[in-house]
Amino acid sequence: MSNMKEGPGTIEWRRREANGSSETLTPESGPIRRACLRACSFVNKAWELGADDPRKVVHCLKVGVALTIVSLFYYMRPLYDGVGGTSMWAIMTVVVIFEYTVGATICKCLNRATGTFLAGFLAVGVHWIASQSGERFGPIIVGVSVFILASAATFSRFIPVIKARFDYGAMIFILTFSLVSVSGYRVEKLFDMAYQRLSTIVIGVCICIIITTLVCPIWAGEELHRLIVRNMDKLANSLDCCVGQFFNDSEGTNHIDKEVEKKLGGYKCVLNSKAAEDSMAGFARWEPAHGCFTFKHPWKQYLKIGASMRGCAYCIEALSTCLISENQAPEFIKKHLSDLCSRVSATASSVIRELAINIETMRKSTKLDFLIGEMNTAVEELQNELKSLPAISHCATGTKTGA
Amino acid sequence: MSNMKEGPGTIEWRRREANGSSETLTPESGPIRRACLRACSFVNKAWELGADDPRKVVHCLKVGVALTIVSLFYYMRPLYDGVGGTSMWAIMTVVVIFEYTVGATICKCLNRATGTFLAGFLAVGVHWIASQSGERFGPIIVGVSVFILASAATFSRFIPVIKARFDYGAMIFILTFSLVSVSGYRVEKLFDMAYQRLSTIVIGVCICIIITTLVCPIWAGEELHRLIVRNMDKLANSLDCCVGQFFNDSEGTNHIDKEVEKKLGGYKCVLNSKAAEDSMAGFARWEPAHGCFTFKHPWKQYLKIGASMRGCAYCIEALSTCLISENQAPEFIKKHLSDLCSRVSATASSVIRELAINIETMRKSTKLDFLIGEMNTAVEELQNELKSLPAISHCATGTKTGA
Repeated sequence: MSNMKEGPGTIEWRRREANGSSETLTPESGPIRRACLRACSFVNKAWELGADDPRKVVHCLKVGVALTIVSLFYYMRPLYDGVGGTSMWAIMTVVVIFEYTVGATICKCLNRATGTFLAGFLAVGVHWIASQSGERFGPIIVGVSVFILASAATFSRFIPVIKARFDYGAMIFILTFSLVSVSGYRVEKLFDMAYQRLSTIVIGVCICIIITTLVCPIWAGEELHRLIVRNMDKLANSLDCCVGQFFNDSEGTNHIDKEVEKKLGGYKCVLNSKAAEDSMAGFARWEPAHGCFTFKHPWKQYLKIGASMRGCAYCIEALSTCLISENQAPEFIKKHLSDLCSRVSATASSVIRELAINIETMRKSTKLDFLIGEMNTAVEELQNELKSLPAISHCATGTKTGA
Repeated sequence: MSNMKEGPGTIEWRRREANGSSETLTPESGPIRRACLRACSFVNKAWELGADDPRKVVHCLKVGVALTIVSLFYYMRPLYDGVGGTSMWAIMTVVVIFEYTVGATICKCLNRATGTFLAGFLAVGVHWIASQSGERFGPIIVGVSVFILASAATFSRFIPVIKARFDYGAMIFILTFSLVSVSGYRVEKLFDMAYQRLSTIVIGVCICIIITTLVCPIWAGEELHRLIVRNMDKLANSLDCCVGQFFNDSEGTNHIDKEVEKKLGGYKCVLNSKAAEDSMAGFARWEPAHGCFTFKHPWKQYLKIGASMRGCAYCIEALSTCLISENQAPEFIKKHLSDLCSRVSATASSVIRELAINIETMRKSTKLDFLIGEMNTAVEELQNELKSLPAISHCATGTKTGA
């Protein structure tokens, strides 16, 4: 038996079964419908992304404002000379340089400036030599110099130190050098053009830096600081959850509900955040002092903390495989060790949480030493207990490393 | 007693001790000397980088050749119009688009083309509307459209799907749209300019693609394929080494020599290769069929293999902490389980090695099933043994997950 139900704006077909239950009849999904559904889910995801972190939306608006200012400046200027003239360099600078964090923006500005200057001076020299050498040797000199410098600069981009800090600068170096050395101008005119280009680039850079630093600034350093604190909390939750789940799961059903699973999986964020930490620490060093961060804030220490956290996360990953393993420890041993293990994990996670608070407030709390003492006592008790069960002592390694 | 020894180009001071041994006297390191030493070590590292992977050097030479061709083409062209003219677009295209792998280069080409076209058409429309609206509303229309589209395109770069594939395209979209809509030309002239610009870009793109595909091509897909195979071998070596070290280390000195340490640490490469795998799989899909890889090669499967390998690597990391742990299992249990555990790890690592060979040759060997059967038997035997030692059964989880 089928009947039609009309909701607000939707028509739904239901089939009622003999036993009273009803089933919604979904229409065959054609390609258009599927495309619509996809588009909807895409828009939905984008919306969630914006709602999750409104600063991303703010960043987009900032880019819009910066570009609009530059565009209108050149659109309304009476002496415009269109695309290909100097105005384009200001727009290009804003588009290319405006990054999400202040540090990244400043880093790109410095890279662009250094690359352009170095390449510009070299290229003017090569250009002058080529123009003095006559029609026959000129192209050879230009060709050879472009070949050597482009190859060398490209190679430098493979060197890890340069890749991390000056990748963009090396690209701009190659670009500027080729452009200038190829240009057909006389050297005097080159200086003139360089001045024009420089002034427009300075306008672009200034607008970028002013907007990025003054309007809702997003500091790479602060992001890194928060990421580390957030990850430490997640790590502590995962540890609690993992050990708790292992000992509570008395029925042995291996069933983990959604909420717990999400909390348990927190350590995975720690595993995957290495690249983000590295890049943020790299950008943070370019940022001026802001908030409670001085210019020489020890950003490298955050990377060390991150590495230690990943060490912990690997252990939690190994421990969490015990939850779904076929071979479970016998019930009597579990019960015997349950209290001690839980205490070790509870003290360890409270140490991690306290450390997170200490990092967040940048102040060493007196509570920390007490908590560490408590944790060490718990670990020692567990070790002694394990020694009294000689056959089981191997397991201690698994449990201890998590602490 | 001191004496001076002069080598080729170096002077060395040595102090001979009473017992006959001699000690080199290093001079106080001043800032210049330190800078020299640093520069030397930098050059040394760069040289090693090139010697390790000569294809990187080949890539640099390819970039040099491509740029030299484009530069000379425009340098020698009689009708040049210098920097700011159309010639710059060909050079810029080569500098920006030429990437290490064929896939990355093609991906950037497509991104650049799509972004430029989309933005160009939109911008010509907006430009036309603005020019029809008179002096008062024109700037408003341009400003509002630049603001909206730049913000939207910037936001789209945060969406993971777009970030992974079209990040560069979105940037080019913003750039082209702003440049064209700001330009002071009449629409007819815009089409003219677009044609010129397009033709120079096509020249740049063609040179890039020809050189990158025909001269010692470096395929992202092949790189990914090799990386996965290499990582599997490293994983197998690490597993062997870790278990072997644990049971051989009968003296309990916790001493691991350099050679073994290097082999043992192989799994760390697996932990750190996620980003590389993701990006290479992304580029590989753009590559035409080459060698034994068809156009629709299942690149995503490699990512799954990578994820499983990382799962194994986490376990090896956990196992390797047992090597340096204070709490070692009692000697009699170690001896009792030594043979079984070693067999499990040996069979598991030979399964991994066989899988690596299968992936490398893209052919399923008959040996694989046999090896897997052997591994399963070994695991079952170990499980039974562990069950007969009830108190120790917990440990099985640790050892088993490694397999």
